[in-house]
Amino acid sequence: MKGSGAKAINTGLADAKKNILDGINSPEDLKKLSVGELNELCSEIRTMLIDTVSKTGGHLASNLGVVELTVALHKSFDSPKDTIIFDVGHQCYTHKILTGRRDVFYKLRQEGGISGFPRPQESEHDAFITGHASTSISAAYGFARGNAINLSDGYVVAVIGDGAMTGGLAFEGLNNAGRSKDKLIVILNDNKMSISRNVGGIARYLATIRSKPGYYKMKRRVEKFVQRIPLIGMPLRNWLLKSKTRIKNSLYHSTLFEDMGFSYLGPVDGHDMGRLLSVLETAKSMKRPTLIHINTIKGKGYTHAEKNPKNYHGIPGFDIETGDYQSGSDNFSYVFGAALCKIATDDDRICAITAAMTEGTGLSMFRSLFKDRFYDVGIAEEHAVTFSCGLARKGLVPVFAVYSSFLQRSYDQILHDAATQGLKLVLGVDRAGIVGEDGETHQGLFDVAFLRTVPGIYIYSPSTYAETELFLKLAIYDAPSVAAVRYPRGAQPAISMPYIPKDLPFDVIESGSDTALVTYGRIFGSACDAYLQLADDGIKVDIIKLNRIWPLPDDLYERLGSYKNIFVFEETMENGGIGEHMAYTLLERGYKGSFKVTAVDEGFVPQSTVASALRKHHLDTDSMVDIIKSTFERETVKRQ
Amino acid sequence: MKGSGAKAINTGLADAKKNILDGINSPEDLKKLSVGELNELCSEIRTMLIDTVSKTGGHLASNLGVVELTVALHKSFDSPKDTIIFDVGHQCYTHKILTGRRDVFYKLRQEGGISGFPRPQESEHDAFITGHASTSISAAYGFARGNAINLSDGYVVAVIGDGAMTGGLAFEGLNNAGRSKDKLIVILNDNKMSISRNVGGIARYLATIRSKPGYYKMKRRVEKFVQRIPLIGMPLRNWLLKSKTRIKNSLYHSTLFEDMGFSYLGPVDGHDMGRLLSVLETAKSMKRPTLIHINTIKGKGYTHAEKNPKNYHGIPGFDIETGDYQSGSDNFSYVFGAALCKIATDDDRICAITAAMTEGTGLSMFRSLFKDRFYDVGIAEEHAVTFSCGLARKGLVPVFAVYSSFLQRSYDQILHDAATQGLKLVLGVDRAGIVGEDGETHQGLFDVAFLRTVPGIYIYSPSTYAETELFLKLAIYDAPSVAAVRYPRGAQPAISMPYIPKDLPFDVIESGSDTALVTYGRIFGSACDAYLQLADDGIKVDIIKLNRIWPLPDDLYERLGSYKNIFVFEETMENGGIGEHMAYTLLERGYKGSFKVTAVDEGFVPQSTVASALRKHHLDTDSMVDIIKSTFERETVKRQ
Repeated sequence: MKGSGAKAINTGLADAKKNILDGINSPEDLKKLSVGELNELCSEIRTMLIDTVSKTGGHLASNLGVVELTVALHKSFDSPKDTIIFDVGHQCYTHKILTGRRDVFYKLRQEGGISGFPRPQESEHDAFITGHASTSISAAYGFARGNAINLSDGYVVAVIGDGAMTGGLAFEGLNNAGRSKDKLIVILNDNKMSISRNVGGIARYLATIRSKPGYYKMKRRVEKFVQRIPLIGMPLRNWLLKSKTRIKNSLYHSTLFEDMGFSYLGPVDGHDMGRLLSVLETAKSMKRPTLIHINTIKGKGYTHAEKNPKNYHGIPGFDIETGDYQSGSDNFSYVFGAALCKIATDDDRICAITAAMTEGTGLSMFRSLFKDRFYDVGIAEEHAVTFSCGLARKGLVPVFAVYSSFLQRSYDQILHDAATQGLKLVLGVDRAGIVGEDGETHQGLFDVAFLRTVPGIYIYSPSTYAETELFLKLAIYDAPSVAAVRYPRGAQPAISMPYIPKDLPFDVIESGSDTALVTYGRIFGSACDAYLQLADDGIKVDIIKLNRIWPLPDDLYERLGSYKNIFVFEETMENGGIGEHMAYTLLERGYKGSFKVTAVDEGFVPQSTVASALRKHHLDTDSMVDIIKSTFERETVKRQ
Repeated sequence: MKGSGAKAINTGLADAKKNILDGINSPEDLKKLSVGELNELCSEIRTMLIDTVSKTGGHLASNLGVVELTVALHKSFDSPKDTIIFDVGHQCYTHKILTGRRDVFYKLRQEGGISGFPRPQESEHDAFITGHASTSISAAYGFARGNAINLSDGYVVAVIGDGAMTGGLAFEGLNNAGRSKDKLIVILNDNKMSISRNVGGIARYLATIRSKPGYYKMKRRVEKFVQRIPLIGMPLRNWLLKSKTRIKNSLYHSTLFEDMGFSYLGPVDGHDMGRLLSVLETAKSMKRPTLIHINTIKGKGYTHAEKNPKNYHGIPGFDIETGDYQSGSDNFSYVFGAALCKIATDDDRICAITAAMTEGTGLSMFRSLFKDRFYDVGIAEEHAVTFSCGLARKGLVPVFAVYSSFLQRSYDQILHDAATQGLKLVLGVDRAGIVGEDGETHQGLFDVAFLRTVPGIYIYSPSTYAETELFLKLAIYDAPSVAAVRYPRGAQPAISMPYIPKDLPFDVIESGSDTALVTYGRIFGSACDAYLQLADDGIKVDIIKLNRIWPLPDDLYERLGSYKNIFVFEETMENGGIGEHMAYTLLERGYKGSFKVTAVDEGFVPQSTVASALRKHHLDTDSMVDIIKSTFERETVKRQ
């Protein structure tokens, strides 16, 4: 059956269908289409999605799952007057295609092209940035309240996956919105993401109601029956609806969502255009917050993705016919996961925790080998840390592997639950630094700044795979309490000089110079290249390579104090970076030399390749050489 | 009825009762007591709670509500082998009295005394620090998993208030724990905290099931009936329990908690010792996570507190007879709230948001005056920010007033939802700096460090009420996107020199000196005193008063560059503080003078008075004088 997925898409009415999508320049163009035409349009959109993502990489399976839903939403609602918020935003591709970005869709996730997430700066149809999960209900309730206060019309729709529904923020939003009478529609896009990971009660609960297609209909039938009772029918119905009595519960089996104050509609087949349009119209007629539960199939329409939705979640470019794409073990995440397995083999206190990112953080092997010590807690970074603290209090060693930008969610838990109690919590901070094509919401540029405010924390920054393994060991066995190992997305850099990882907080590559290039992490590779290039030009520098970037030891400062010029290069935000603290300590110690930090000073770095972003922020080899040279040239001029 | 509350407590069997509490030196001593004696003990404990808190201040109403529950827990479970986690921890007073701290209870919340929150360093019975809400289920699940992995016995109990249950972290915990088979008992202490604030669906939902005392019994009756059916009884019962079918839902009206995977017991009268002990025994026999829903009365046993539980939540010392205590308008919170009301009168875009802290953040007046633009979202700081972002996208101006230490929860939302979109969000950061008696979990010592990592943010730090009003206006009308106004707990400091607030990022009190004392916020008062004391000793310093502490303007650095000595005093953590960044910029600009920052360098500052903590961290007048003088003396010695 090899390649069958692609065949289903690329054959048939492809040419005829083209005509429909070509005519869609804004959601307005959908209004005149019939259900049959809308279904044809969906087929064309799927072709475009598969074609484009096969070249650009991106989120495939989730987008294939919401084609009908997105078309139905834009047919039924009037964006941007009506607000549609996608949660997580990576399922917004069809939305982008339908809202005037069809012709630039080929530039998906590329520098200067369009973002893989909703972005208000990009289009008035992108209501809210949603790179992180579980935000949509809260934001949508804000929009709805805003409409109410402004006395303006407009529906507000939040489309949230069942995975994102496991996040506490979604619950806080449901809870708070449930009190209102606002026109807020939450669409629970249930593609069994949370189920496949079996992360908790919500997943099991959704499985229960998912299997009750009659639920909504049964309720309507009871309602209709009651309404038809002469004279007392309507008042009785209204009383029943309002009351929260046992009678009502018996008649209207209450769902969790109804308990929270939402009307519940569903479950509805999310690939049945007719039913989708019908349930959306029903929701529009409701005078209160309403939740529509739809069932969709991740990867729908592309056999490879349908069969293995997890493998086609976030992917690089791939071969449409075979479904093949580059993956494997040549990346920091894999190395981290493998190293953790090695340690856990000898130390049965080691537990691994992930917040719905088993594959992304390289923990698949750990899951297989140490089932009882592996926890996928759902999209719940706060819980991940507090739960880990409970484990730590029982003498276990929790290792939470998480993307840098998602770890921002755990700041309070790291401080309040772990650090105040001096607990041993190890953070595997994946995607630290520039991440590339996922863009501004996913850059790992804040972890250095916020983690180093945590009292007692140790932060390690490996440059290579070998160091990742070594530093993970140090984090587990040397650090006194909270410890983080931060490593970048992708593969280790080429190191142009022979270099052996050392169990030292910092290391010096000496050249007898009075100029130091201080750096850490991935860009140590570029520093080595710069070292060689500068040497070619007769300029000698010492490289000070930081391994444990926090806390910095006294002897580092003693060493630094001896340099006339210090150049710090950091793949992180300038504000709150290591260079800043280094300057502070040097100045307090009376350092009189020159000091310059190069780090990311742009607020939020948009999508591009990693190399391009590093170049743009002067963290590549050429920039290092130029920055150091220009200082030398200025000094030479001064001396003349 | 004046004073009636106290009378109920202080008369009657007081002398006889004393004997019971005097004999309780550990939970073990409870085991032999009868229900009648336990009830007498509860009465004695209430007397002690009221007596002590009337002198020390602290959390009264919530502690009075859980006396029976805590006694029942320690009678039924074996701490510390069994784990009891209180959420929020301020309801732990009875627990402290029962676990060997009766004799030092009079030192509650005092320096060197016992903390107002559970603290593992203080007692082996304090399982987990819980100064922030909604953490208990996550932590307890970690403990339970730890027990399971270690093959060790021991129950784990989380006691969580209905207010804390509105936090997303609690939901994440429920969701994740609901999958397990661990011996985890969650006690929902429903004292209608969330109801009184009417914050959302959960509150309404609890009100529904609270009114169903028959719920649990009815279920048991159905179960017993089914069991009695000959032959098929037990298998049928087990099948019913396991199945999640419509039949089961009809027989066993499913609660939200059951939907999440918990067994549900309750509701039970939380002041009925017999019933409490009985339901705890039932819970112990369960082989899976179980939630017990108990109803308690906040302030139980002290009439003043029962009548106005909100007024006796967190309070200073009070008069037992009359219930009177110091409150009023002489504090930054009140001034902030009043200033916001003034602005909102003229600007109908202004909305106020609180996370269950209306009174604490001074928003009561706003709530009365602008009902439609006031939002208490529950203990849900993440939602508060994301919801605010939705409002902002609709052209409103959300002002979120929140304690500094709780704002740590919103770090990701401030970055990802507000700052990436350049939205106008105003943060009223209350309790910034040293908070005093609430201790380490409540200190507002991290906000400067984490907020200044937010791209584009403006941070203002008023020293006086007048500045609070002025800077709030600047935050609303001058700042380009996210803006924070941070102000301390309590009253404005005395300023010993005439000083008029200025609409400038910084201000200079000149004395023609080459030494600068740089400071901001509350301790500007101490700086003024130090200025005068130093002047008396013939030492001149300029005071550089920062108003907008972030970003710092160029002309500040031009000015600073001209000083020979710079002393920075900051009421915040040293790491990530303003002084650190200042040093960095000065060093990059080639500053050659001396530079010294004095800030909080201790990891977490325990309870004490504010004055004592400031003194301990060298942020009082005398320390400022000493630090500056000692430098001058060293320099004088050097010159001789």
